[in-house]
Amino acid sequence: MDEKQLLMIPGPTPCPASVLLAHARPMINHRGPQFKAVHAEVTENLQKVYRTTGDVFVLTASGTGAMEAALVNTLSPGDKVLALSIGNFGNRWAKMAKVFGAEVDKLDFPLGTAVDLASVREKLSTDADKTIKAVLVQFNETSTGVVNPMPAIAAAVHEHGAMLLVDAVSGLAAIDLDTDRLGLDVVCAGSQKAFMCPPGLSFVAFSKRAMAAAQVAKMPKFYFDILKAQEFAEKHETPWTPAIPQFYGLQQGLRLMLQEGLPAFQARHLRLRDAARAGATALGLRLLVDDPAIASPVITAIYAPEAIGPDPIRKLALTKYGVVYATGQDALKASVFRIGHLGFVDDADMLAALGVLGNVLVELGFPCDPSAGIVAAQQTIARALNAQA
Amino acid sequence: MDEKQLLMIPGPTPCPASVLLAHARPMINHRGPQFKAVHAEVTENLQKVYRTTGDVFVLTASGTGAMEAALVNTLSPGDKVLALSIGNFGNRWAKMAKVFGAEVDKLDFPLGTAVDLASVREKLSTDADKTIKAVLVQFNETSTGVVNPMPAIAAAVHEHGAMLLVDAVSGLAAIDLDTDRLGLDVVCAGSQKAFMCPPGLSFVAFSKRAMAAAQVAKMPKFYFDILKAQEFAEKHETPWTPAIPQFYGLQQGLRLMLQEGLPAFQARHLRLRDAARAGATALGLRLLVDDPAIASPVITAIYAPEAIGPDPIRKLALTKYGVVYATGQDALKASVFRIGHLGFVDDADMLAALGVLGNVLVELGFPCDPSAGIVAAQQTIARALNAQA
Repeated sequence: MDEKQLLMIPGPTPCPASVLLAHARPMINHRGPQFKAVHAEVTENLQKVYRTTGDVFVLTASGTGAMEAALVNTLSPGDKVLALSIGNFGNRWAKMAKVFGAEVDKLDFPLGTAVDLASVREKLSTDADKTIKAVLVQFNETSTGVVNPMPAIAAAVHEHGAMLLVDAVSGLAAIDLDTDRLGLDVVCAGSQKAFMCPPGLSFVAFSKRAMAAAQVAKMPKFYFDILKAQEFAEKHETPWTPAIPQFYGLQQGLRLMLQEGLPAFQARHLRLRDAARAGATALGLRLLVDDPAIASPVITAIYAPEAIGPDPIRKLALTKYGVVYATGQDALKASVFRIGHLGFVDDADMLAALGVLGNVLVELGFPCDPSAGIVAAQQTIARALNAQA
Repeated sequence: MDEKQLLMIPGPTPCPASVLLAHARPMINHRGPQFKAVHAEVTENLQKVYRTTGDVFVLTASGTGAMEAALVNTLSPGDKVLALSIGNFGNRWAKMAKVFGAEVDKLDFPLGTAVDLASVREKLSTDADKTIKAVLVQFNETSTGVVNPMPAIAAAVHEHGAMLLVDAVSGLAAIDLDTDRLGLDVVCAGSQKAFMCPPGLSFVAFSKRAMAAAQVAKMPKFYFDILKAQEFAEKHETPWTPAIPQFYGLQQGLRLMLQEGLPAFQARHLRLRDAARAGATALGLRLLVDDPAIASPVITAIYAPEAIGPDPIRKLALTKYGVVYATGQDALKASVFRIGHLGFVDDADMLAALGVLGNVLVELGFPCDPSAGIVAAQQTIARALNAQA
């Protein structure tokens, strides 16, 4: 039954049928009244999800495109940036900044940990001349499943005065983030993550300060020119022909998200995280992230048993059970697999994913009670739901 | 009946239901076996349509993104390029090249005409030191509806030795273009044009010489890095999460296109052009492009009667008849409207579009026989089909 798959990866995520079907609507003129109405609704609802009254722009690109837009519209070649990296996506952003001519100072933190605030404060305090123009940070680092302490990071960066650019591609909406209250300057997100939509669109919120920076930023850009995006957004259009199917899908995804309500939406993700962690631990597996306080509500990285490794687990789960776990990335590729739990994933999906994991482990010769994971998850979910009720 | 519209614009175009429904398929892992199979088929069929055995890369971006990718992957800041402009998209590409640091020499030709070969040859012959690295040209200029004589341009450019970068976004597949035989270095195209697909993807073909240029090109890029695209294309993946719905749609669009056969597909577009020109002329309207030999098979620009202007025509056609014509662009905005006829547009659509045009003109007070256009188109179509048979 190849058509049926349980996608437990950090995007693309499963999508509601109503979102998928919205992608099949007939085409319309992207300069006509029907598109303007969709653009207006989508923008307004994105502002609600971002918790901002500022500009949010929709790009036809992946999250990487949004991350490029964040840099090239706020910085000039030679500008100094401080990149805080806790994993693969932090490394990618730092590399990207260098490609466009920034002078990048990078602070690396051990995989599986969050940014160390003391190091950040120290680094910023030694910059007496305020030469650091911007700080780059991941809200949720997808490669390790760690959430950074954004309020504390924002406070430290604001004290210094640099702009704060946030890659929230995999975290936004699924994890509480108040763009305006934290004074975040640019916040990136993507359709195929919490939004329960297919890939194809990404989003960038720009603060007033970031829009002012865009007026003078000299890094070259054309497709990702945010001033051009703003000019067209005022008439509810995009400068270049947009991915219209995804606009229709996003319209529906946002409606569903706001109907569930952000607090319930986020509580669901916390519950899924707790269930994943409890389940994996009960199966005798070790989690990459020790500290539950920084563990991601959208993805859980798990060490495969050393004698087995992650690949056979992923392969057997896919071919025998139709369950898709994610690989580890870079340095973690040979040791870790990840269970994504974001967007249109519910408690029942998590039970299934952990039940399959138990069976797969036993079949691969790992000594464990195959039901320990699913039972632990079941109890965790029941406790969380009953505490809510 | 707001849901029903006849989209006679140069993209987004109408799409077959099978293409639209392909966009509604459940999501899959973009690093998994199912996506690889789609990527492989799509790439192979794109090569057939491009008539190339070289690399064709699929980008999640509009055609403008493909045009940016063409430049930043083949050129370095300070490189001299010769931009041949016969309209809006030529101007845009020249501007883009400047933004990324190229030294742009621009040859402008009157709106409604093609590139003048003598001027191009003269310009290239004065470049004795061969400082011109690349020539930029539109295959089909969408703003005016003119097709450039690519074989002659290619011959002139090859004699000089510069790379030839071609914006074929609106023309590829609908109009005969043999990428390999003409030795074109980069050729851009987009899903929402001839391919009968919604917007969201664009394509770039890179010759061996262009791939070699990519190894040394210093214009900054990350999202549009073609070496990264090549690295991932070898395993039938994309470097960044792709617009999966459009990949499914493109798979189907390409199947339909190759099933119809490129010669029949292109003959249809020529027939639609001839019908549009005959119809508009019979209604007493003046065409922007006098010379039928350079008139575009995919879009026809028509002067609105001066006393009426293009806006009332477009508005009445849309609100009363559900037919969407395109605006003029830039200098032609106040005088011209355009009828797009590409992709999933057939003879019957063209009859409808011209019948509505006749009615609209009469209702707006233009003295004409409202049936003259539709009848002329009908005869043109019959003649063409009977000549084929």
